[in-house]
Amino acid sequence: MEKIRVGVVGAAGYAGEELLRLLLRHPNVQITAITSRKNAGDGVENVFPRFTGAGLTFVEPNAAELAKVCDVAFLALPHGLATEYAIPLLGYGVKVVDISADFRLRSTAKYKEYYGQEHPAPELLKEAVYGQPERYREQLKTARLVACAGCYVTSVILGSCPLLEAGLVKTTGIIASSMSGVTGAGRKVDLAYIFPECNESMKAYKVFGHRHLPEMEQELACAAHVDEIKMNFIPHLVPVNRGINSTIIFDAAEGCDLDKIEAAFHRAYDGEQFVRVLARGKCSDTKYVTMTNCCEIGFNLDPHTNKVIVTSVIDNLTKGASGQAVQCMNIMCGLPESAGLL
Amino acid sequence: MEKIRVGVVGAAGYAGEELLRLLLRHPNVQITAITSRKNAGDGVENVFPRFTGAGLTFVEPNAAELAKVCDVAFLALPHGLATEYAIPLLGYGVKVVDISADFRLRSTAKYKEYYGQEHPAPELLKEAVYGQPERYREQLKTARLVACAGCYVTSVILGSCPLLEAGLVKTTGIIASSMSGVTGAGRKVDLAYIFPECNESMKAYKVFGHRHLPEMEQELACAAHVDEIKMNFIPHLVPVNRGINSTIIFDAAEGCDLDKIEAAFHRAYDGEQFVRVLARGKCSDTKYVTMTNCCEIGFNLDPHTNKVIVTSVIDNLTKGASGQAVQCMNIMCGLPESAGLL
Amino acid sequence: MEKIRVGVVGAAGYAGEELLRLLLRHPNVQITAITSRKNAGDGVENVFPRFTGAGLTFVEPNAAELAKVCDVAFLALPHGLATEYAIPLLGYGVKVVDISADFRLRSTAKYKEYYGQEHPAPELLKEAVYGQPERYREQLKTARLVACAGCYVTSVILGSCPLLEAGLVKTTGIIASSMSGVTGAGRKVDLAYIFPECNESMKAYKVFGHRHLPEMEQELACAAHVDEIKMNFIPHLVPVNRGINSTIIFDAAEGCDLDKIEAAFHRAYDGEQFVRVLARGKCSDTKYVTMTNCCEIGFNLDPHTNKVIVTSVIDNLTKGASGQAVQCMNIMCGLPESAGLL
Amino acid sequence: MEKIRVGVVGAAGYAGEELLRLLLRHPNVQITAITSRKNAGDGVENVFPRFTGAGLTFVEPNAAELAKVCDVAFLALPHGLATEYAIPLLGYGVKVVDISADFRLRSTAKYKEYYGQEHPAPELLKEAVYGQPERYREQLKTARLVACAGCYVTSVILGSCPLLEAGLVKTTGIIASSMSGVTGAGRKVDLAYIFPECNESMKAYKVFGHRHLPEMEQELACAAHVDEIKMNFIPHLVPVNRGINSTIIFDAAEGCDLDKIEAAFHRAYDGEQFVRVLARGKCSDTKYVTMTNCCEIGFNLDPHTNKVIVTSVIDNLTKGASGQAVQCMNIMCGLPESAGLL
Repeated sequence: MEKIRVGVVGAAGYAGEELLRLLLRHPNVQITAITSRKNAGDGVENVFPRFTGAGLTFVEPNAAELAKVCDVAFLALPHGLATEYAIPLLGYGVKVVDISADFRLRSTAKYKEYYGQEHPAPELLKEAVYGQPERYREQLKTARLVACAGCYVTSVILGSCPLLEAGLVKTTGIIASSMSGVTGAGRKVDLAYIFPECNESMKAYKVFGHRHLPEMEQELACAAHVDEIKMNFIPHLVPVNRGINSTIIFDAAEGCDLDKIEAAFHRAYDGEQFVRVLARGKCSDTKYVTMTNCCEIGFNLDPHTNKVIVTSVIDNLTKGASGQAVQCMNIMCGLPESAGLL
Repeated sequence: MEKIRVGVVGAAGYAGEELLRLLLRHPNVQITAITSRKNAGDGVENVFPRFTGAGLTFVEPNAAELAKVCDVAFLALPHGLATEYAIPLLGYGVKVVDISADFRLRSTAKYKEYYGQEHPAPELLKEAVYGQPERYREQLKTARLVACAGCYVTSVILGSCPLLEAGLVKTTGIIASSMSGVTGAGRKVDLAYIFPECNESMKAYKVFGHRHLPEMEQELACAAHVDEIKMNFIPHLVPVNRGINSTIIFDAAEGCDLDKIEAAFHRAYDGEQFVRVLARGKCSDTKYVTMTNCCEIGFNLDPHTNKVIVTSVIDNLTKGASGQAVQCMNIMCGLPESAGLL
Repeated sequence: MEKIRVGVVGAAGYAGEELLRLLLRHPNVQITAITSRKNAGDGVENVFPRFTGAGLTFVEPNAAELAKVCDVAFLALPHGLATEYAIPLLGYGVKVVDISADFRLRSTAKYKEYYGQEHPAPELLKEAVYGQPERYREQLKTARLVACAGCYVTSVILGSCPLLEAGLVKTTGIIASSMSGVTGAGRKVDLAYIFPECNESMKAYKVFGHRHLPEMEQELACAAHVDEIKMNFIPHLVPVNRGINSTIIFDAAEGCDLDKIEAAFHRAYDGEQFVRVLARGKCSDTKYVTMTNCCEIGFNLDPHTNKVIVTSVIDNLTKGASGQAVQCMNIMCGLPESAGLL
Repeated sequence: MEKIRVGVVGAAGYAGEELLRLLLRHPNVQITAITSRKNAGDGVENVFPRFTGAGLTFVEPNAAELAKVCDVAFLALPHGLATEYAIPLLGYGVKVVDISADFRLRSTAKYKEYYGQEHPAPELLKEAVYGQPERYREQLKTARLVACAGCYVTSVILGSCPLLEAGLVKTTGIIASSMSGVTGAGRKVDLAYIFPECNESMKAYKVFGHRHLPEMEQELACAAHVDEIKMNFIPHLVPVNRGINSTIIFDAAEGCDLDKIEAAFHRAYDGEQFVRVLARGKCSDTKYVTMTNCCEIGFNLDPHTNKVIVTSVIDNLTKGASGQAVQCMNIMCGLPESAGLL
C-alpha cells in the first residue's frame, strides 16, 4: 500500500514533537514536511536530538508548498493561526487534522466569548468533525477537517458521557477538578514555567472561565441530550511532565447504583482499544497511561453524599493531543485505528 | 524566663523531624527528650544529619521517665498508640499536644466508624481542645490536652469557616478536592511511596470515607451552627515533598457576592499572623507557604454557576502538623503565639 | 515466520516491566510465560495496569515448565539466583539472556571479591557471551548464554572503548563520574528510596568498590589491549525515574587531538543504530534517550589540562538493561537487530 | 543595640529572595531598601508572596539614595553591573557585600579571559576581601568590600583546602565533578530552564572553561602554597531546586592515609558552626543542608587507585550565596557570626 504523506505544521512544540514520535514509527505514513517559523532550516535533530537520523528539516510553513507533498496536514499551532493554514490547505484538497481550538466549538458566540475574537471561518465550523474517536468515529470516516478535542476535555468527556447518556447522573452541579503536567502549557518560555517555579508547587489556576469549559459543556450536553450544561472546571498545575487526571463529581440520578455505572462504562468502552475501565472502587493513575494513547477510568459511588466520583487519566500529549490526532487520521484514511499507536 | 521543657514522643518520622526543626530554634523551649522505639540509643544526627550538634539522643518512650523531664509532651505517634502515652502523661501532670487523630473527633461513634475500633479513652475527649488556634484560641489557653487538627482538615477549615459563619455559602454540596505531597503519608516504607512509583504520577485515592472527612464535617458544622454537614473530600497524591492545596467548592447562598466573601475572610484573618488572604481572583500556591506556618487563601465567585471557589494552601508538616502544634503549645504556655515560628 | 517464544523470569520488577513493554510490541516474539514468586497467580495488569489486555498471568518460576514453552528465557533476577535458573534452562536447550551480574565477570576471583561468594557456575562463565552488541556482535550470533552488560557499565564502555582502542587516551587515571535515576535501584522497598528521601536530594554513594567497577575495568582493559585497568567509578543518585549520565575523564595520550577523537567515535558508531555521536563540544542529555535503546555520546578535549571529557547517556532500563537484552536476543535469533526497539 | 541598616540591590532574583528570607529574621538588621529595575514600585509581596506583611517596596537602584539609608549594601546583580554600584556605594561610605563575580579573581588577566572584558575596577580588587569566612575570617573583620565566593567554588574550597594545606593530596590532576539544582542558573527565563526541559533530565554542561574554574584554582593554589593549580571542574544540571554536590577526586600524596585526612578536616572545621564533617566513608547528601548555611563533607580513600574522594554539599542559595553573604556581613559588622543563620 502506498504510504500516506503527512505534514506537521508547527512541529517544534511539544505536541509537534509527540506527533513526530508517533508518526515516525507509524507503518502507513511518511512524513514529507515539518514546519516551524522559528526553526526553519534546522534539521529536526537540532531541536529534538532524539530524532537524529530521521532526515527531516524544518521549513517555513506555506500552504501551497505543503499541498504539493501532503495528503494530510496536522496543525499544531495556536488558535487563530491554525485557521489561516486550514483554509488554503482544504482548498488544495489536503485533509486537515487541527490540534488547535479553532474548530472545536460549534457556537461562534461561545468562540467569541472565550477566545475574545470573531471566529475566523464560521463556514468551516459546519463541516468540521470533532476529533474524539470514541464518540465521533462514524463522522470521522468521511471528514476533511478534524478539530481534535482539547486535552482536559478528552479526559472529562471519556469519564462523563457514558453516565450522562445512561441518565445515571444529573446534568446540573457537575464539577471537574483536574490536574495537569507542565507540558500542558506548551513549550512556552515564561517565568511561571521555569523549573524552580513549578517544582515543589501545586496550585489551581483559571478556576472559572477556562477555554476548555465551553467545549466540555458542549460535548456533555450532547451526550445528555439536553440543550445546555453549566458545570465547573477547575484546573491545577502540578510538577510532572506529562499527564492529566480529572476527578469528576456528579450528583447521582434517581435509580443510579454502582452496578449500573459499571455497566454503562463497559457498554461504552468494552470494544475500545484506548479506554480502560478499572474495577469498581479503584482510582486511575496517570503513570499507567504515560506515553500511551490510553484513557484509564475509575468510578465510585459515595453512599454518604450520593455523589458519583469518576477519575479519568490520560497523557496530555498523546490521548490529549497528538495520539488522538493520529487516531483520527487513521479513521479518516481507512487505516487500522490503532496503527502507530500501540 | 525559665525555658519550657519539652519532649517529642515519636520523633523519628517526618512530623517529628519538623517538630525538632522548629523547637530547636524556639527561644523559650528546651528539648529534654526525644523518643523512638526503633532508633533508641541513636544520636539524632544518625537519623537526621541536619541536627548534628543538637546533642540529642533517642530514648525508648516511657511516660514516667518523660514526666520527670518534660513540662509538655508532643505526641507524633500513630492513632491509638498516642492515647497510651497521653493517659499516663496527663496523670503525671504533663501537658500533652497530640498530633495523632485520637482526640480530634468529639463523637466516639464517628471514631469507631472511621478508625475501626472503640475510642480508647472517651473520658479524655471531653477535655481535649481541638488544636486549631485560629478557631480555638481561648480554649487552648487553659488546655491540658490538645488534639492538633489534621493536615487536610486545617487547610479546609481555614478556607471554609469564615464563609459558613457568615452564611455566605450553603452547607450542602460542599466539595473539597485536595492535593498532598508525599510526606503526607509519613515516613512509610511501602512500594506505593518509592520514588519511581510517585514521580510522574498524579492520582486520587480514598475518594470517599477518608479519615479526615468526619473531622472536617465536625468543624464545618460547628462554624455553620448546624447539626450536621455532609460533604465530599477527595484527596490526591502528587510528586512534591511538602504542601497541601485544597480547592473547596461551595454553592453561594442567597445574597452572597464577592465583596461579602472578601470581607468575611478579612474579618476572620486580618489579625492573624499565620493566615494570608490573597486579592480577589488570585489563586494560592503551595510554594509560597513551604517551610512556613502560614495558610494562604484565595477566593473566587463563578458567575456562570454561582459557585464560590476557595483555594487554601499550607505546608502539611508545618501548619498541617508540627508548626500548628508549636503554635498551640505557645498559647497553652502563655508564650507569644509566633515564638519559634517566624 | 514462526514467532520466537520467550519467557521473562522475574517479571515484576522494573527491568521485567521494561522487557514486557518491549516484547509485547516486538513483531517476531510471543511472550509465553512471565514469572514472579510474589505475584504468582496475578494477572499482569494487577501489577502493571498499563499491560491490561495483554492476557498474561504471573506463574511460579520453574525451569522445566519454562522449557516447555520458551525458546528464549530472560532472567531479570538478583545475582546468584539467576544462575539457579540458567543452569537447568540451558540444560533443557533454552537460550538464556541474563540481565543479572552472574556471568559478566570472566574472573571468578573478581566475582568472589565483589559479590562476596564463590561463583556458582564457573564452567558456564567460559561460554557466556558479554551482552554488549556494539562490541560482541559476532559472538552473540551463536551464543546460548548472554550476560547482559550492567547499566552503568554500558554507558562507560560505549563512551570509552573507541578512544582506548585508538590509543587516544591513557589507560591510567580514568575516572567515571555517573548519575543514575532511582529505577536503577530496582523496585526496592527501602527507606532510602521513598519519594521524600530521594526528591530534592543529590548524593554520591559507594564511591569506590561498586560492583560495576570490575566489569568496567575488564571491558576497558580488553578494548585497550592491556592486562589490567584500574580506574575510579563514582555513582551518584539523583531524583529522576530513568536515565544514566556518565561523565568520563581521561588523560589524553600523546598525539591526541579533537579530530582524532571525533574520527574514532564515528569509526566505531557510524554504522550503529543505537549509538549517536554528538557534534564536538556538545554534551549529551538523558532526556534525549529516555524510553529508547540509544546511547548519546558527547566529547571534548580540555586544552587547559589536556583531559578528554566524554559524556555518555542511556536509559538505564532500556539500553542499560532490557532494551539491550532484546537487542542481544535479536542477534542470537537471527532477527533484525532493531526489531521491537524502534 | 542600634540595628544595622541594609539594602539589597537586585532583590527580585533567587539570591535576592534568599537574602530577604534571611535578613527579615535577622535580629540585628533592618532592611531599609530593596531594589529591582523591573519591579520598581511593586510591593515585595507581588514578587514573593511569602514576604507579605514585610512592608517592603522595590525601588529603582540608585547609589546616592541607597547611601542615605544603608550601612551595608548587598549586591545581587550580574557581573559587570555590580561594579557600577559598588564604586559609588563605597564612595559614600557604605560597606558592600557583593554576590556577583566582579571582585573574586585577584588576576585581572583571568577576569578578562573568563568574563570577556577588561576588569571594570582593578583598583578595588586590591582591597576586596574574598567572602569565604572559614578561610578569610580575619580579613573580613575590617573589610569594606567583600567578594562572596561562587556557589560551586564554596563547595569545592571547603572540601579541598584542608587536604591541600596539610599536603595530603597532590596539586595536579584534581577533578571536581559537581551537580547543581536549577536555581543555580538564577531566575532566568530561558527555554533550557522550563520545567519539562529540566525534569527527568541529567546532563553535564560547560565541561571546561566554566567561570568558576579560575576562582577555584586561585583559592586551591593559595591553600596549597603553590603558584598555580590547574584542575578540571565539570558541572552538571539535575532536576532539584536547591543544592550543590561536589565530588572531588585527588591523587593521594605520599604518606596520606585515612586517619590523616580525617584529622585534617577536623582540625579545620571542629570550631566551625557551618561545616559538618561526616564519619569516614560516609557520603554527604544535599537534602541534609537544604535551607541551611551548612556545608557537609564526606571523605574516602580508595585503596584500589590511591585516590582521595571528597563529597561536599551545600545549599547553593544559602552557603553558596546569600547565607554566606550574611555570614560575611556579620563578621564585618562585629555581630555574632551565626546571627540570623540558625
